[in-house]
Amino acid sequence: MKVIETIAEMRKARKKLGEPVGFVPTMGYLHEGHIALVKRAREENGSVVVSIFVNPTQFGPKEDFKSYPRDTGRDLAMLKPLTDIVFMPSDTEMYPVYYDTWVTPGEIATRLEGAVRPGHFRGVDTVVAKLFNIVQPDKAYFGQKDAQQLAIIRRMVDDLNMPLAVIACPTVREADGLAMSSRNVYLNREQRKAATVLYKALTLAKEMWEQGEQEAGTIRRRMTALIEGEPLGAIDYISVADPETLKEVHHIKPPALVSLAVKFGKTRLIDNVVLE
Amino acid sequence: MKVIETIAEMRKARKKLGEPVGFVPTMGYLHEGHIALVKRAREENGSVVVSIFVNPTQFGPKEDFKSYPRDTGRDLAMLKPLTDIVFMPSDTEMYPVYYDTWVTPGEIATRLEGAVRPGHFRGVDTVVAKLFNIVQPDKAYFGQKDAQQLAIIRRMVDDLNMPLAVIACPTVREADGLAMSSRNVYLNREQRKAATVLYKALTLAKEMWEQGEQEAGTIRRRMTALIEGEPLGAIDYISVADPETLKEVHHIKPPALVSLAVKFGKTRLIDNVVLE
Repeated sequence: MKVIETIAEMRKARKKLGEPVGFVPTMGYLHEGHIALVKRAREENGSVVVSIFVNPTQFGPKEDFKSYPRDTGRDLAMLKPLTDIVFMPSDTEMYPVYYDTWVTPGEIATRLEGAVRPGHFRGVDTVVAKLFNIVQPDKAYFGQKDAQQLAIIRRMVDDLNMPLAVIACPTVREADGLAMSSRNVYLNREQRKAATVLYKALTLAKEMWEQGEQEAGTIRRRMTALIEGEPLGAIDYISVADPETLKEVHHIKPPALVSLAVKFGKTRLIDNVVLE
Repeated sequence: MKVIETIAEMRKARKKLGEPVGFVPTMGYLHEGHIALVKRAREENGSVVVSIFVNPTQFGPKEDFKSYPRDTGRDLAMLKPLTDIVFMPSDTEMYPVYYDTWVTPGEIATRLEGAVRPGHFRGVDTVVAKLFNIVQPDKAYFGQKDAQQLAIIRRMVDDLNMPLAVIACPTVREADGLAMSSRNVYLNREQRKAATVLYKALTLAKEMWEQGEQEAGTIRRRMTALIEGEPLGAIDYISVADPETLKEVHHIKPPALVSLAVKFGKTRLIDNVVLE
């Protein structure tokens, strides 16, 4: 496994990689969710590139860019058996002082996470476009956990005619159902326990749907009541939406994306399930 | 020479082209300026792709998208001896109804043309990014005549790490100095004659610089006086700026870009010269 820090060296190394090239962009502090993406990339490609880059442009001024958890030594050890190249550029390598071009998603980025985190998805699209141009993968792997991010990246790849396939992988969960996330480390013991309410609410939604409930409002109300029973959690949103456009739906026609954001203290967790 | 109208077919044909691939994006209604770009691409590459696409997203709502001159038969005849593939997509092939991702230049696009044509360079960056992803050229050729467009595309290619070289080619002029432009066809006989004032003013700037004048303000005043002597022309701007950032300069340190926009009736002409 090669660790590369400059764009020029990454381009050079790219030319020698076995085809096809699978790519997993990450912000590091890896967990089993990331590793599942890397394993899938390993199975489906001749070589695998993983990037580790905590992208400053997707954090708001009051968000956790500086405190975002980092542990490169551990990340590299986890990747070693599965990865050909780890691309780990510095902030200034990616964004020189004169940097000033942005890839901007449209209406889809105004909803859900985008409504709460203005500019977030501009940062995501921009860094992913850059990484795609540097790594030039044939296939790129993203987790279903960040459902809006996935939809926006699919939209970007399709709109800008990027020559690669986007592959979505299922959310990996802890034994009690909590979706794996680098931010789970922020939770104290009580919050960690309370956070299982996200998956409980999503499971409730799925069960209601499977038992014939088709009204989004009814499902949302029952989910709201369930989460409000957990005093440590504060609901940011509960959404039932089209998985491609993220537009809210009233009467559910599958597939529909049920997603939610709940705060525990300062830590905001998101999760989702797709009704098929 | 193959004429291709779909993205899927263009991608397929791209794989069979001799390397390196040179690319000249155009809006058609070709003149000797375009042909100089294609000839240069021919000399420097194993194969040449030219696109003809009047890009709707770079025209403002009150601009000349519908009336922009078109003559595909003539364009194809001019390209035939020099070109391997002409890529000529429809509007809906490039922008399906759900289209909603934009490549947006920053501060550099707020000046000069960008100040007068809001959204113009967002349309330019977006369509050029799309065409680059579809054609995947090694080298792309642009005319120095559209100096701000050139600077913005260079900025985009550099910022987004696009894997290709941008090559600028000198402005091609009519015998009397008027820069070739598809929009020159809009001028009536009197306006056409009056339009030579642009090049006269730029030549004056160059002569003043060569004779030791270093103050942008002095040069601009003399150019203004010269153009105001032409009653058919109305000055939009006269600028002396850094060729990379387009920021106005006061005391000239070469290289400096002297550029101007002048209206003749409804027709707006631009031109420039670089002081070395």
